[in-house]
This record gives sequence, C-alpha cells and structure tokens, in this order.
Amino acid sequence: MSVLELLHTIPSPDTDAAQKAQLRQDRLTKPTGSLGRLEDLSVRIAGMTGRPIPTIDPVVIFVFAADHGVAARGVSAYPAEVTPQMVLNYVRGGAVINTLARLAGAKLCVADVGVAADFPSELPITHCKVRRGTADWSRQPAMKLEEAVAAMQAGCDMFQVEMPVGLAVMGEMGIGNTATAAALVSYLLGVDPALVTGRGTGLDPAGIAAKAAVVREGVERLPTELPPLHVLAELGGLEIAAMAGAIIAAASARVPVLLDGFISTCAGLVASRLAPGTEHYLISGHRSPESGHTVVLEALGLSPLLDLEMRLGEGSGAALAVPLVRASVDVLAHVATFDEAGVSDSHGL
Amino acid sequence: MSVLELLHTIPSPDTDAAQKAQLRQDRLTKPTGSLGRLEDLSVRIAGMTGRPIPTIDPVVIFVFAADHGVAARGVSAYPAEVTPQMVLNYVRGGAVINTLARLAGAKLCVADVGVAADFPSELPITHCKVRRGTADWSRQPAMKLEEAVAAMQAGCDMFQVEMPVGLAVMGEMGIGNTATAAALVSYLLGVDPALVTGRGTGLDPAGIAAKAAVVREGVERLPTELPPLHVLAELGGLEIAAMAGAIIAAASARVPVLLDGFISTCAGLVASRLAPGTEHYLISGHRSPESGHTVVLEALGLSPLLDLEMRLGEGSGAALAVPLVRASVDVLAHVATFDEAGVSDSHGL
Repeated sequence: MSVLELLHTIPSPDTDAAQKAQLRQDRLTKPTGSLGRLEDLSVRIAGMTGRPIPTIDPVVIFVFAADHGVAARGVSAYPAEVTPQMVLNYVRGGAVINTLARLAGAKLCVADVGVAADFPSELPITHCKVRRGTADWSRQPAMKLEEAVAAMQAGCDMFQVEMPVGLAVMGEMGIGNTATAAALVSYLLGVDPALVTGRGTGLDPAGIAAKAAVVREGVERLPTELPPLHVLAELGGLEIAAMAGAIIAAASARVPVLLDGFISTCAGLVASRLAPGTEHYLISGHRSPESGHTVVLEALGLSPLLDLEMRLGEGSGAALAVPLVRASVDVLAHVATFDEAGVSDSHGL
Repeated sequence: MSVLELLHTIPSPDTDAAQKAQLRQDRLTKPTGSLGRLEDLSVRIAGMTGRPIPTIDPVVIFVFAADHGVAARGVSAYPAEVTPQMVLNYVRGGAVINTLARLAGAKLCVADVGVAADFPSELPITHCKVRRGTADWSRQPAMKLEEAVAAMQAGCDMFQVEMPVGLAVMGEMGIGNTATAAALVSYLLGVDPALVTGRGTGLDPAGIAAKAAVVREGVERLPTELPPLHVLAELGGLEIAAMAGAIIAAASARVPVLLDGFISTCAGLVASRLAPGTEHYLISGHRSPESGHTVVLEALGLSPLLDLEMRLGEGSGAALAVPLVRASVDVLAHVATFDEAGVSDSHGL
C-alpha cells in the first residue's frame, strides 16, 4: 500500500495484550511498581504489538538526511556542506550514531532523501533523493505537495524493506532543520515562534533571536488552517516528511517507534496529524534542550526516557534509549514470578 | 593490603588524562558539547583511570545481601524472609538483576555478608557472612566495631578477587535497609530523620511516619561526633559496610564505581568519610524516589544518569546505566575527529 493509503489504517492498541502484560508485571519477583517507568513502557509495547510478552528485536535505526534552503539565512552554527559530509561519515562508520548503533545492537540505515549534493550510486545508502534540498520556506513553499508525498513514500518504503522490524528508531541529519521543526511546531500547535526556537547545534542568543524572526516569517507567510500535508509541503523538510512516512508505516504494522529529539518528535506530530492514532506507537528517547521539544512532547503526551543534555540528533539520543526499551520487555519475559521463585510477596506480612 | 590500610591510599584523579580526553571530545565530528553529560562522564572516567581514552570493561555487578534487626520493628512492606529468598532467586537467574546484568554485558557476583539464614555451602555465591543480621539499631548497636571492619574487608576482598575490573557496580538486598540508610544519612549529614525517610519498597504514609520515628530513635541514641567507622557499627548494615569496603578498594585501584540508588549511595558517603577522595570515583546510576537519596547525592556532588522512578535496589538502576557509561567512553574511543573525517566544523563558517 502507498503511504497515503496507510493514513487511515492505524490500529488501536490491543488493550487485552496490555492488560495481560500488566498482570504479569504485578507477579514478578519485585515490589509492585518498583520498576517504575520500565513497567509502564512494557505494558504500552504489549498494547502496540498485540503481544502480552513482546520483543523489540530486530532494532533498526533510520537516519534520513536532507538539506534546507532556509539554512542560507544563517539559522545554523554550521554550513550546509556539513550535511553531505556527515552522510559520508556515517558510511565510513566514524560518526557518533555508528558507535551508538553498534552498542544498541541495532542496524543503521542511512537515506539521502534530499541532500543538496550528489553521492556516488555505489555508496551504501538508500538513494531516494526527492530534490536537492528544500526551497527557503521563509519566503516560498519548501516543496511541491507531490514532493512531500514522495518523501513520505520514501520513508514508508525504507521501513517496509527492513521488515520484520521490532523497534523503529528515527534519526535525521540536515543543517538548518531545528528551524524547520520550529516552524512546523509553531504552525501546527499555534505557539509563538519565539517559544519553540532554540540554539540548535550552537547559536548564541543573537543568533537565536535572528532564527526566531526567520521562523516567524515562514509561519506568518501561510494562511490559517492549512491541512497537515500542505503544512509539510510549505515548511519542509524532506527528512521530516520521510520520517513521518516511516512512522506511519511502522504504526500501521503495530511496530513501536522510538523518537530521538526535537526534529524526530516533530515528525511524530506530523505523522499523528496525518494518520490519527499514530501517537499511540510513539516512545520518546531523549529530552532535547530545545524549548520546542517540550511543547511538542506535551502535545503528544510523551515523556522522554533520558535527559542527558544532548543536542546532536542523527538518532543518538534514541539509540542510547534502546537498551532501556529492551530491558523493559526482557524483564517482563524473563524474570520469575513470586510463585515460580517461592518468594513471599508483601501480602505475606 | 587490608581495607583499613587502603583508607589513606585513594589517588587524586589524573588531571592530565582528563584534559587530553576533553581535547579529543572537542575534535570529534559533532557540535562541541552536543553529547552533554556523556562528554563530561568520559572526561571524568579518563581522570579516574588515568587513561585519556579509557574503557570500562569488564563490568562487574556486586550484590551484597544482609539482614537488619530493625526490620522486626515493621519498617518494611516485606517480611525479612524475603532476603534469603531473593538470594536464591539471584542464584537461579530469576531476578530482575539477572536479566539486567545480562543485558549490560556484566558479570553478577552475589555475596551473603550477613543474611539471617543459612545457605548450603555449595551455593554459587560468596559466603562471607559476618553475623546473622544486625541487631536492632533503634535500641542497641547494630554490630561490634570489628564486625563492621570484617564486613568492609569482605567487600574489599570480593572486589580484589574479581580484578581486573573496569567498572564496579554496587547493588544490595536487605529487607529494612532503606531505614538503615536513612539513619546513617541523617546522622552523618545532620539532617532530620523525617527528611530522609521514605516509602522503601511500598509503605503507606502511616508506615513512613512510624519508620521515621524508629530512625529518630536510632539516631538520637548516639552521642554526637562519632567517627564514621563507629557510626557504621552503631547503625549498620552489613551490606552497606561491604559496599563501602568494595568502593574503597575500587577507588584505591582507580576503578570507577557506579552506584545504584539510596542504599548504595549511602555506602558511597560512608566510604568517602572513611577514605577521603573516594567521592571522585563515584558515578550515580539512577535517582531513587527516596527523599534521602537527593540529600546524599547533593552531599557527594553527584547527579544520576537515569530517573525512571524505579525503587527496586539489587543494583537494577545502576545496571540500566551501564550502557550509558560504556557509550560515553566508546564514543571517545571510536568516533572520528573533524580532521579524520573531512567534516567542516563551526569555524568553517
């Protein structure tokens, strides 16, 4: 099915499987509730997958790379040429996400969905470039509607090629994309641009103020009450559209999605607006210091597993959270119950 | 050397190694500081180990089990018989820490340092029972001074037998031991018992109030300004003394120590009072909901890596933090620098 056909296929979580998981958690040899958020997470994953004792392997980390025309307006501390350089770094295994993916026991899949540079076709990445970066959305539409759909389809296809997937981890690379995410979140949630614009990879206060002004130009350029697909085309980016497509494909297949920071959570918001119910399949990996992240997390009802003051992207915060997600389901599967172990519970008093 | 001989052998962190680690972090292909607390952690570990590019493997999780006479006063939601039952559960592989140790790639070592039950000598644990539980410290000394030293020596020996160790993880099992930790922290830091007494594994508000009253009896029974070794003997527990001994042995060998929750951090405080400088070798794994944990963390200048609302003990929160500690040093070792990868840094603008 095409990604547009999947939009209305998101299943409700399986409450029966979730209930069975909760009952088992309550019989494991530990004080009731003593694993805190790990217990809730295992119960949620049981509901997502429809399995009372779920597993999350194989774990696949998707990193979608694309450029942003708005980068020319100085919204990033880094030049746009870093986007293709980092894609090459991923291929060579030299980036942070390479090390973290290995530690997480996860496969890393990198895609060029819209980098403004050409890569040799033999480069071991998924070549699905829709266009060479978006246009500057502060002054014109980032891309055509059909280009936004094509980028979503690329993300959807990339997920489906990797099936079976137990946990889909979302990462991205794109100089300028915190500005794009700020514009999307500002428009979709009706929040002032200044409240969702942050320092990105390293702007100073003056740089942040200038970035917020650019975000305001983009948001105020648009008519009110645009449908979400039109918002995505107007503001971009290509990697956010691809993540949204991959997230929708995962949710429609009952596969949990682990989000990274601000950009991927913004893609989760877009996906949930396009395909209602997708929000039930989202797990937040790491709290970004970007103020916009807190705003979009609240809108989605999510609370991150980690808060290590990281602001790198490329899926790094989510990759660090993979062992926590795996622990939540492995405990449910492998720990003995009070009856099995002959341990007295608190009712024994 | 005996543990008492080690007390004044704690080396200062190696500032040269730490500085070299910081310089390397700043040249890795990521925005400066973008790995947040992981960067600081890798630099600290470089200082602890004296190696600019440190490693943490092999990781060993030590779980010390012991009983507390004060449990008879109803300070726990669980009966004291659970302590030996859980030791048997560890041996059979059915407990949460078994699953989490496996996931963390860590060896699990369990010791009976003072359980009030007899185990068959062929049970694959370290048999180093000093006595069958402590006396009720709310009314009399928990143990003799030489018993406290023997328990510390048992922990020290257990660490040294496992050398080489890259990261020493502290865990414990002992029904009633949050009350003991509350008494120790209250006395050592001069904080009112009510401020450091919590629900443990599941007390209700009335139970917490009764527990705080018991803690107050114990603390008020003691003269002021007792030396730390005497405080340890007066209040216990045997597993806290053993952890303190293991922590001191690790610090004297420049091995980083990963603490779990309230009890093990209390052992870290005791170790630092006995052997000044030990605090530089401590890493906090998980923030306990026990109010006393925040108090002792502040005294030691530590901030936990995780906050998942867990309150299990047995090293579980620390085991979950092991992958984060490993990630911090693996990133330092394996990620390419800007020069190696041909990536532009922010100065390229």
